[in-house]
Amino acid sequence: MSLHVVPVEGIGEVTVGTDLARLVTEHAELLEGDVVVVTSKIVSKALGLTSRSDRDTVVDQGTDRVVARRGPTRIVRTWSGLTLAAAGVDASNVEVGTVLSLPDDPDDEARAIRHGIAASTGLQVGVVISDTAGRAWRVGQTDIAIGCAGLSPFESFAGREDVHGNALAVTAPAVADEVASAAELASGKLGGLPVVVVRGLPAHLLLQDDGPGAAALVRAEDDDLFGLGSRDAVVAALGGSDGRGFPTDPQATLALVVDLARPNALPVVVAGEVVEITARRDRPDEVLEAGALRQRVESLALAHRLHTTVRVTLA
Amino acid sequence: MSLHVVPVEGIGEVTVGTDLARLVTEHAELLEGDVVVVTSKIVSKALGLTSRSDRDTVVDQGTDRVVARRGPTRIVRTWSGLTLAAAGVDASNVEVGTVLSLPDDPDDEARAIRHGIAASTGLQVGVVISDTAGRAWRVGQTDIAIGCAGLSPFESFAGREDVHGNALAVTAPAVADEVASAAELASGKLGGLPVVVVRGLPAHLLLQDDGPGAAALVRAEDDDLFGLGSRDAVVAALGGSDGRGFPTDPQATLALVVDLARPNALPVVVAGEVVEITARRDRPDEVLEAGALRQRVESLALAHRLHTTVRVTLA
Repeated sequence: MSLHVVPVEGIGEVTVGTDLARLVTEHAELLEGDVVVVTSKIVSKALGLTSRSDRDTVVDQGTDRVVARRGPTRIVRTWSGLTLAAAGVDASNVEVGTVLSLPDDPDDEARAIRHGIAASTGLQVGVVISDTAGRAWRVGQTDIAIGCAGLSPFESFAGREDVHGNALAVTAPAVADEVASAAELASGKLGGLPVVVVRGLPAHLLLQDDGPGAAALVRAEDDDLFGLGSRDAVVAALGGSDGRGFPTDPQATLALVVDLARPNALPVVVAGEVVEITARRDRPDEVLEAGALRQRVESLALAHRLHTTVRVTLA
Repeated sequence: MSLHVVPVEGIGEVTVGTDLARLVTEHAELLEGDVVVVTSKIVSKALGLTSRSDRDTVVDQGTDRVVARRGPTRIVRTWSGLTLAAAGVDASNVEVGTVLSLPDDPDDEARAIRHGIAASTGLQVGVVISDTAGRAWRVGQTDIAIGCAGLSPFESFAGREDVHGNALAVTAPAVADEVASAAELASGKLGGLPVVVVRGLPAHLLLQDDGPGAAALVRAEDDDLFGLGSRDAVVAALGGSDGRGFPTDPQATLALVVDLARPNALPVVVAGEVVEITARRDRPDEVLEAGALRQRVESLALAHRLHTTVRVTLA
């Protein structure tokens, strides 16, 4: 099954109130089963999400919580669950002095475009709203799907086997993100081609209904091993924050946490949610170490999202 | 500029010693400027990287350091700098009871295939070796380029401006990864189509020489804000490990670290690399807090990759 990835020519400047579904159908020759990839930039422009406010203020408004910091750069989790530098607030390809923020509900915008295309043409197409995202561990960005409709956001092989009989349980290609990446290759960051048509996707990846949207591609916060940057995680754990950004772990126990805290020679007893450390009052080295151990247990418990009370008894 | 993404039919089973360049030229109608995407799986099979050893043993061999753990799953950094679950060791689409490990130098394998194709056809093509990778923050996997030759791994806009005159300094699309993602859409995880041709990439992304390879897409360890999982970072910082996995930060100072450590009411003096905490010997609460504060400063210094000696003086 071969794919064609075709940028749509002649889109021109998008302004507040532009009907994107009409814009697409006026400029693209669509077929049933095509996937239309629209950059978030023109969705935001059509929605009038341009601001003359200070960029930091707009980033603050889009921030659920800070994930990591580097100098003046903040990588944040947005209210819709995306993890993006500067909350996806964009100062490129906009008028100088303005910034553009992301739609509140990109899946809803994808559905609106899909329904608009269906209403005027009778065609069922998939729609992806794409945005550019940096990545952990790798240089450069790829486009991802921040919204989608009429398309499986990922393909699940749970319960399937390969030709050798090996289970494929954990394999789930992120189809909508891969579509966004393919479109980016054809769109040309500088060329102003904000709409791309991807033709030829296997039929089972296209849906008759809108489907779960790109929200299904957001890893649940409790399930995310990288919910805080490495350094930021340490600051959070030692600062006794609320534990957001740390994954939950059904296998975590206080006994494990105490073991990780390297209890050394001091007597430590775990009873329910209480950890009791004993040190000799007349041995300042033991009292100092008890204080350090208390800190380690408290921080590690937070990082494992366990409630505990740590008591030090001076005997 | 439209792209065509075409899977190559009829490849069949790859075994040890299979000449992949010949395999590609025998089955694909190539044109100058095409990019040939080859899954790492058949590269590994051709190299004979199949093992009957215990899977954990093979993962250990491929592991430079552990990045994060979840139950029995380890996300690790491999010797070539990739961050992958189980070091990319694969138990799917292989004979039951065997596992397949990744090539030591995937860029070298990409170059070999490219040179083989050029030698037999005279065509200059790009070659990408793809693998499937999980992601921070998002569900599902996308294919990425673990090796490439004859192709810009990313497109840099440093120094360029958009049509409004805004600098595009930080934008650098990861072209090779996006090509791998596009190819995955056409290859069909279950269909056994391990070679895909991507045609129509803009000419400036193709190189006359092999180029820097996909190694250029690996974020330098010192520059990576997510070099350790959130929970694993806390364990490392409180365990006093060697600081690998934490980013370096030229702006970090010991004064910042002491401030983050929340010094409370105890007197703290920073002098060079030494942090001196004073507590009253006859006040066990102060001695306990001094121990906890020492722990916080030591751990935060490690997370900021600063050397320090923390001394507690009991007055």
